[in-house]
Amino acid sequence: MERSTTVVVVGAGLSGLSAARVLRAQGVDVVVLEARDRVGGRTLNHPIGDGKVVEVGGQWVGPGQERIQSLIKELGLETFDTYGTGKNLFEHGDRLSSYRGAIPRVNPLALVDVQLAMTRLGRMVRTVPTDEPWKAPKATLWDSETVASWTRRHMRTRLGRSLIGLACEAVWAADPADVSLLHFLAYCNSADGLESLISTDGGAQQSRVVGGSQQIAVAMAEELGDIVILGEPVRRIAYGDELIVSGDSITVRAAQAIFAISPALAGRFIYEPALPASRDQLTQRIPNGSVIKCMAIYDEPFWRDAGLSGQLTSDRGPVKVVFDNSPPDGRPGVLLGFLEGNQARELGRWSASERRQCILDCFTRFFGPKAAQARDYVEKIWADDEWTRGCYGAFFPPNTWTAFGDALRAPIGPIHWAGAETATRWMGYMDGAVSSGERAASEVLHDLAR
Amino acid sequence: MERSTTVVVVGAGLSGLSAARVLRAQGVDVVVLEARDRVGGRTLNHPIGDGKVVEVGGQWVGPGQERIQSLIKELGLETFDTYGTGKNLFEHGDRLSSYRGAIPRVNPLALVDVQLAMTRLGRMVRTVPTDEPWKAPKATLWDSETVASWTRRHMRTRLGRSLIGLACEAVWAADPADVSLLHFLAYCNSADGLESLISTDGGAQQSRVVGGSQQIAVAMAEELGDIVILGEPVRRIAYGDELIVSGDSITVRAAQAIFAISPALAGRFIYEPALPASRDQLTQRIPNGSVIKCMAIYDEPFWRDAGLSGQLTSDRGPVKVVFDNSPPDGRPGVLLGFLEGNQARELGRWSASERRQCILDCFTRFFGPKAAQARDYVEKIWADDEWTRGCYGAFFPPNTWTAFGDALRAPIGPIHWAGAETATRWMGYMDGAVSSGERAASEVLHDLAR
Repeated sequence: MERSTTVVVVGAGLSGLSAARVLRAQGVDVVVLEARDRVGGRTLNHPIGDGKVVEVGGQWVGPGQERIQSLIKELGLETFDTYGTGKNLFEHGDRLSSYRGAIPRVNPLALVDVQLAMTRLGRMVRTVPTDEPWKAPKATLWDSETVASWTRRHMRTRLGRSLIGLACEAVWAADPADVSLLHFLAYCNSADGLESLISTDGGAQQSRVVGGSQQIAVAMAEELGDIVILGEPVRRIAYGDELIVSGDSITVRAAQAIFAISPALAGRFIYEPALPASRDQLTQRIPNGSVIKCMAIYDEPFWRDAGLSGQLTSDRGPVKVVFDNSPPDGRPGVLLGFLEGNQARELGRWSASERRQCILDCFTRFFGPKAAQARDYVEKIWADDEWTRGCYGAFFPPNTWTAFGDALRAPIGPIHWAGAETATRWMGYMDGAVSSGERAASEVLHDLAR
Repeated sequence: MERSTTVVVVGAGLSGLSAARVLRAQGVDVVVLEARDRVGGRTLNHPIGDGKVVEVGGQWVGPGQERIQSLIKELGLETFDTYGTGKNLFEHGDRLSSYRGAIPRVNPLALVDVQLAMTRLGRMVRTVPTDEPWKAPKATLWDSETVASWTRRHMRTRLGRSLIGLACEAVWAADPADVSLLHFLAYCNSADGLESLISTDGGAQQSRVVGGSQQIAVAMAEELGDIVILGEPVRRIAYGDELIVSGDSITVRAAQAIFAISPALAGRFIYEPALPASRDQLTQRIPNGSVIKCMAIYDEPFWRDAGLSGQLTSDRGPVKVVFDNSPPDGRPGVLLGFLEGNQARELGRWSASERRQCILDCFTRFFGPKAAQARDYVEKIWADDEWTRGCYGAFFPPNTWTAFGDALRAPIGPIHWAGAETATRWMGYMDGAVSSGERAASEVLHDLAR
């Protein structure tokens, strides 16, 4: 199949579809190529019967996420609050305790330790420009170490370090030892701070989309119609005299291209000519995180009757973060447990039945014997997914922002780079995906107008 | 073109050719596919007239490198000593000084600082198993930080840290901020210690190959004959019922495959089925270093007459390490300057003429005005090379050995992994390339015998 168009968009996730939508609204001819047989990228609904769904990919939206919030409204979708009524649980070693509000009842020394670290990090966060993190006054210093080595030097309690580590795992699906301190700071600044990233009420986990977050992509794709071509993994990009993007069975000629996929995957195509060194080496250096989203389905959200919110944090694991992820009406009851970073890497190698048992054992430890009686179990190992290869998104190891950051968004000839990783606001979030697609679309419109 | 064979080897560098050689010696049918129109991978001779060459890739061999040394002998090649007669130079800031032996005349506090750090690191080095670095007693701790954060914490002088930094750049073509401390230690242990890695006399830079190091690969390829197929970049590997390795114009059916290329590049092929998550995520995480090898050619090695060895170390840069790289008879005179890590990344974006001028300016600063009068200038930017994408090889950022190390050599079905990165002795060196190819060949022989 041969197609000619003005702009070819690679990837029908939130970013690519947002880009296509902006371009179409300006009357520009677009073709969107998607490797999968579905749209939505890292958002994915999973049906659980009775027309209800759980989301095995990105799902939350929060205050300050203006682009995704207005897109949801424009598309006629609705949000509802993440369930948070009742007491939360905190597991420290083999001790399980409950608490209300944001702060678990743990050793006050550890709380002070965390508070001091958050204050100190907060001051650092505000000095890092999210569009050019390498220009922070102390960028070189902060990009020369990991979050782990920073907390080891600046925090005094093991539990305090462990709590910051949990935050790191929850936000990047990577360990504190994976992530550059500068990346941690830039990312937090793009999202109004670490507290906002890890909070439910008033934070990034505040709301969910009725019908599931994949509806956002599905609704955009419906608007776009048959310009969205599924099941066509791109393999090769020629961008010499002419721009030609080819898959196994399609060839698209275009004037401009937007690549709305994660940098690691974008680095795997065949480019003719080969990409410049700075871009190529960047794609070798920002790996995707590791997360397995695990959900147990119950007839009822029985924990609610016990006065529990279903939200849990554990420093023991393997499941370290749990949410009540039931549909808006609370039927069925759904417990969502995350395996992140090293836990995802390790349990990702287990058999499906071993993993299921381990998750249900964790839930049972947290919520009592009823949790063992799941009527269904759903999981998604994002690193196994050929067209994603890790979630939530890419993180920057040390010395990557400073050495290669300026190659992240710089267009190469007719090729423009989108995707949540390239956002300067809510980097890595659904909101960032949308704004990155819109930014790439405006770059293209600017180039087309020349 | 269609071929059937028993073993297909991907990559005709030292590793792939060594593997093919072992297999052929056992009477096994082999086809070697090479993307380039030449063999040798990261070794590459560059003719400079009169039948003489300089090497723009890997070139040195040293004591303890038994595999490459015996291969050189078997192939009828010879080695000669790296030129080291006379005084070495050391540039600290804007001060240039000369010294004899291994230790520059610098502030004794800095020397003590370096000596203490080397002693301390040396003790750590010996606890890291080179085949399984993640099993070192303190692996998790050491893999949670960079070399930069370790030296900042454990070294007291700026110059001392800078010298360890120089060693890091010289060995990995990466900055101390790039490299995991655990990787630093494992790599040193695979090579009899840091001192051996950075030394000329008695170390990894002791000897050179007469006629240039690429002769090793060329001689092996000549022995192998027409089973080495050039100009065939591999694109796709099917390894379900049948193993089929395809390039743009060739399809090879085989029982087993050996991939003798760097992990980042191996991660870019299309695998059917997709690779397991642990292998795929590993390939997202071990980027290649950044080096530009720059050589100025002079009628005479004029520095020798001034009693200089041509060896220099500078903490100012951009050229921080220089060698006399003249042919065995010293005619013409060749100065070799390295741009490594961040210097390579930055100067790699300059125009060729700007870069040449900068290098000659550095040489002139070091060796006087005669150095400005080069009759020729040769350089190789390895990150620009489509089939290499960075040298000297891959390095491990933090939390990569511990999280993904066991996926480095583990075969996947009929696919075996070779290449200098997979060596347990002289990791990343020509010696490691040879031993890794031989190890992969013996894995294959074992599988074929089952």
